Amino acid sequence: MKLSTQPYKGTRDFYPDDKRVQKWMFDKWRAVCESFGYEEYDGPILEPLDLFTAKTSEEIVNEQTYSFTDRGDRKVVMRPEMTPTVSRMVAARRQELAYPLRLYSIPNCFRYERPQRGRLREFWQLNADIFGVEGIDADVEIIMLADAVMKAFGASEDQYEIRVNSRELMNKRVKAAGLKFGKELVDVTRLIDKMDKMEQSKFAEALTEYIEDVDALLGFFEKDGATEDYEDLEETLKRAGVTNVRFVPSVARGFDYYTDIVFEVFDTNPDNNRSMFGGGRYDGLVSEFGVEPVPTVGFGMGDATLLNFLESNDLLLKQETETDIYIATIGDVAEAAQQVAQKLRAKGKNVAVDLSGRKLDKQIKTAQKKGIAQVLFVGEKELETREFKVKNLETGKEEPYLLDS
Amino acid sequence: MKLSTQPYKGTRDFYPDDKRVQKWMFDKWRAVCESFGYEEYDGPILEPLDLFTAKTSEEIVNEQTYSFTDRGDRKVVMRPEMTPTVSRMVAARRQELAYPLRLYSIPNCFRYERPQRGRLREFWQLNADIFGVEGIDADVEIIMLADAVMKAFGASEDQYEIRVNSRELMNKRVKAAGLKFGKELVDVTRLIDKMDKMEQSKFAEALTEYIEDVDALLGFFEKDGATEDYEDLEETLKRAGVTNVRFVPSVARGFDYYTDIVFEVFDTNPDNNRSMFGGGRYDGLVSEFGVEPVPTVGFGMGDATLLNFLESNDLLLKQETETDIYIATIGDVAEAAQQVAQKLRAKGKNVAVDLSGRKLDKQIKTAQKKGIAQVLFVGEKELETREFKVKNLETGKEEPYLLDS
Repeated sequence: MKLSTQPYKGTRDFYPDDKRVQKWMFDKWRAVCESFGYEEYDGPILEPLDLFTAKTSEEIVNEQTYSFTDRGDRKVVMRPEMTPTVSRMVAARRQELAYPLRLYSIPNCFRYERPQRGRLREFWQLNADIFGVEGIDADVEIIMLADAVMKAFGASEDQYEIRVNSRELMNKRVKAAGLKFGKELVDVTRLIDKMDKMEQSKFAEALTEYIEDVDALLGFFEKDGATEDYEDLEETLKRAGVTNVRFVPSVARGFDYYTDIVFEVFDTNPDNNRSMFGGGRYDGLVSEFGVEPVPTVGFGMGDATLLNFLESNDLLLKQETETDIYIATIGDVAEAAQQVAQKLRAKGKNVAVDLSGRKLDKQIKTAQKKGIAQVLFVGEKELETREFKVKNLETGKEEPYLLDS
Repeated sequence: MKLSTQPYKGTRDFYPDDKRVQKWMFDKWRAVCESFGYEEYDGPILEPLDLFTAKTSEEIVNEQTYSFTDRGDRKVVMRPEMTPTVSRMVAARRQELAYPLRLYSIPNCFRYERPQRGRLREFWQLNADIFGVEGIDADVEIIMLADAVMKAFGASEDQYEIRVNSRELMNKRVKAAGLKFGKELVDVTRLIDKMDKMEQSKFAEALTEYIEDVDALLGFFEKDGATEDYEDLEETLKRAGVTNVRFVPSVARGFDYYTDIVFEVFDTNPDNNRSMFGGGRYDGLVSEFGVEPVPTVGFGMGDATLLNFLESNDLLLKQETETDIYIATIGDVAEAAQQVAQKLRAKGKNVAVDLSGRKLDKQIKTAQKKGIAQVLFVGEKELETREFKVKNLETGKEEPYLLDS
């Protein structure tokens, strides 16, 4: 039977060119997070299912998880997001860890979704969280960090907008507008999260199922600019150079665990105007593990969405090969060529030896195809004189290279 | 309900100290592979189950995989190893890729096993493979690379031994000793792979089920040193500085797909004498995807086994925090402290701000606990004069630091 060469639906193969782009992205993520004092952690891809049923979005757990029963009859899930895992880890060492605790990770996560632009079944996500700070200083920092990440990729302030809201404030307004008997706050929040994807009349109609005074709530959503309670946050951010921040009362976020500040970073390109990533404050998650609560605020940023943003804004840089020198062989000199390579490696050069025994022009073409800048020729004559020729494939120039034996 | 803080059985949480060790290991793996011209790739964790039923070890597929049916009724598996994936990827671009093709990856793999020292359910594995070279030059290179990895971690030649064999030669000898009617070569190979873990008499007895002339085969296994066909390989490796290589006719390796050279790297410590990792030649795997065959040789090296080796040989180095400066605040100056931090970040420093508002000695203790070398103090007075004090926590010395505003 002939096997398929296709990757599993909604996942990607990363050939070296793709992997280099991914590493470039991850390295930037790491550098920015570490510049703010965040430390990298990681957790298992498999987690007990009940870790996610506790608090993650119901839609994700019921419809989008890769969950199954293992050979030992445990219900497990391939993590759809990282927040429950990091909360579990902090709870496990609640007393030993030093606060403020700043953590970041670049996990791959799994969701069974219909694959589409920026949405895949396996994706990577930068997660950054600060634990142990109650006030807006931590909210400010986490939004500064999200902004610094965007700027590190060369994004300019007009290419994205940071929309902030408060779950606490939203909950207050929902209650003030009158939650109907038997209806839950969490369901209204999930509906509000879908507002941007719905026609306004449909949204208003859907609200009537839950809310007594729909007009009052709609009026709140139309309000622009920060309410008195959150002016501070907006002003502090602006003074810190995050000028493209705006208070938008309808920002909800899909996860149930948020308790106060939520924010989303929007692509401002009119052809692609949508939320790219976001985060918020979730002060109640660590205490689900039976320890004292730890106030926390963080965000998650997916690789596929960011890739699309960078591509469409021409910010995606081509990455060069790590190989410095390609050794082409003349005659049956593979062993000696490998020895020459070892000498160059000892000097810190990355060196590949051709080993194919093909004609010289074919070997040079291979080096070109691999994007390697220099070819060094090794034959009987060169091995005797220890004088090798190096050809620069960009300029075409050949220069002698003397190797001490 | 109180949730458990334990990670799923056989998996690990990586707190920042653990993650730093992992990154140190991965960075070394990357540097050595790239010095030989290997390029990094990656593939999905989820693969169709039939990719593994085709060629991987029967034991692994039937008893050790995490396999399940997805929400779209596809049989999938969390990869137990990387070789089938990379073979699939090469087959998919058989014509476009430039050979010799050198690839490496550091995937996490999953096996449902009883967790024990060096054996976990989620582990990482360096995979390095060279595609497109038939002769021993590639076998030599891949063993040189495995050896270079060990040396890069500071291992000395007496701490490990590279044992080489040939499946082709072993198959010949098995056939010469007479395979009994109805018995398969693959079953004998699997039995030989378990030889080291069995009593000799039990092994001989088990062989009688498959082999006519058991003594002849046992005699072959007792032979030490390379057979004529493989002297070349051993001698070339010794000339290349790999002196701790030895031809051992009973080395088999657990995977069914090997076609010729196989090798295993053994820990020579008498308390821990066992195979740490290995590899071999598998010329038939790429063609399983319906394309022309591509000769391939490679190896896989697990992180947990290597960690144990490095620990027991005192080669595991403690890694320092990436944070350069911790800002302690005096009074209500969080915003200004963050601005000072931003200036330092712009100069390339990694800076964390305390943000807790606690007493100064508590803030300093936090910096110490995090292993950060320097604390910079920010208060009203410092903000006015722009002269800050920096305390070196190792020496205890304080020095003034002038920040241009």
